[in-house]
Amino acid sequence: MNQLKLGQSASLSKTIGESDVYLFAGITGDFNPAHIDEEKSKKGMFGERIAHGILITGLISAVIGMKLPGEGTIYMEQDARFLKPVRIGDTVTATVKIAEIINADKRIVKLDTTVYNQKGETVISGYAVVKAPERKDEE
Amino acid sequence: MNQLKLGQSASLSKTIGESDVYLFAGITGDFNPAHIDEEKSKKGMFGERIAHGILITGLISAVIGMKLPGEGTIYMEQDARFLKPVRIGDTVTATVKIAEIINADKRIVKLDTTVYNQKGETVISGYAVVKAPERKDEE
Amino acid sequence: MNQLKLGQSASLSKTIGESDVYLFAGITGDFNPAHIDEEKSKKGMFGERIAHGILITGLISAVIGMKLPGEGTIYMEQDARFLKPVRIGDTVTATVKIAEIINADKRIVKLDTTVYNQKGETVISGYAVVKAPERKDEE
Amino acid sequence: MNQLKLGQSASLSKTIGESDVYLFAGITGDFNPAHIDEEKSKKGMFGERIAHGILITGLISAVIGMKLPGEGTIYMEQDARFLKPVRIGDTVTATVKIAEIINADKRIVKLDTTVYNQKGETVISGYAVVKAPERKDEE
Repeated sequence: MNQLKLGQSASLSKTIGESDVYLFAGITGDFNPAHIDEEKSKKGMFGERIAHGILITGLISAVIGMKLPGEGTIYMEQDARFLKPVRIGDTVTATVKIAEIINADKRIVKLDTTVYNQKGETVISGYAVVKAPERKDEE
Repeated sequence: MNQLKLGQSASLSKTIGESDVYLFAGITGDFNPAHIDEEKSKKGMFGERIAHGILITGLISAVIGMKLPGEGTIYMEQDARFLKPVRIGDTVTATVKIAEIINADKRIVKLDTTVYNQKGETVISGYAVVKAPERKDEE
Repeated sequence: MNQLKLGQSASLSKTIGESDVYLFAGITGDFNPAHIDEEKSKKGMFGERIAHGILITGLISAVIGMKLPGEGTIYMEQDARFLKPVRIGDTVTATVKIAEIINADKRIVKLDTTVYNQKGETVISGYAVVKAPERKDEE
Repeated sequence: MNQLKLGQSASLSKTIGESDVYLFAGITGDFNPAHIDEEKSKKGMFGERIAHGILITGLISAVIGMKLPGEGTIYMEQDARFLKPVRIGDTVTATVKIAEIINADKRIVKLDTTVYNQKGETVISGYAVVKAPERKDEE
């Protein structure tokens, strides 16, 4: 990213596998039955196991760290509202868009961060604040 | 949790291993060199590889889903400000505390969510909004 | 392996799971949509997600390191031509056969390396060059 | 990639963790002691556990699928000569360079594929043959 422009966006899509949910459960210890107990989940409000909201938020982090602003970005804040469950097998797309230049000198920007599923439903809505890396070619 | 009381808290501690960082990178695709390239990280601002902020946020999710309010909780929102880096080998403690009863009937509460490291430094500060599960024994 | 004989062979079979593909994507960072995005893959040339070719080549490596020539083998070269896709759920068999004794004193041999699927179709064809371990019982 | 030009290149770096080696062993079943038995490896020719050659080759695959030629590329062949061992903790860089336009109409190209370590030593040398994706904007 050589210049920060309002409206710039980037995204990443992934079909969420059972292994994603199980590894994330293993890393964090979040063994809530909603994520790892199919029998209990069948009787619950979603009817099946669902992915951890923070796992899905991780895809936003990947877009920020890899694409926009990309490598060298300092992640300052993430706010995420979990609007709909993500089921195993759903394909989600995390999208990041520059919404506000908070401080142009310090390269601090606010990003709209949204994740939607294969039906076009928004599953996570929120924002991030990041410090974008400097680029030599701008000087 | 039979009753929601202001100030109730719960926590979870974990020493963050390289495998945690590598698996999280693998789940999300966040191969930012800050997390997986020790050579480049040596020359960067932290001097070594650091964990993904959202990975650490996952420990908050674990406390919420496993302890307070615990199983059956609906996670509505998480806000996290990343204040300090977490290095591989750091031991972090995620703490959740009931900060506000937003709606007692619907059992919606606001939680202070904080993660600190082995030196007592706060690495993540923020809040969550959750809908606590109903408990039969309360009726 | 006490003696290297032309035509000797060994093999290994595995049904390729989604977790194999997802973990391999996670190790390597190969998040090509062909492997992790079912929605995009449906519209692509294979109609569904496929395994990474190098993942499947790893099964050849396993036969070489575990069976023929086995423990202590030095892997010098692998050539693999990817002839057909491997889908999640396919059962593949990696086969290794001694094709040529390149240098009997140094125990360097060329192996035909082939992987076929449950329909008998060849999915990978190629060769390896390896230095077989010495065996005391041969002296 | 809108145009295939001789000499174009792309790369990816990763510090190889123990978890990478262990997960790859788990996916493929390659439990050769050289990769997973530190005691036996101490007495072996490398003095410690080393990564699987094919695991490292996977980084080449990631560059091809993600960067050059990138998404939509058909992987036709990979040849890899394993020149030096990669130890746990080594940082390797996989580099891909367009070496030959085999068939411009069919967009088939030959790539030089090289992996070097943090000392600048080449650990893998070889080539790939790929069919690059078509791009609408070229018509």
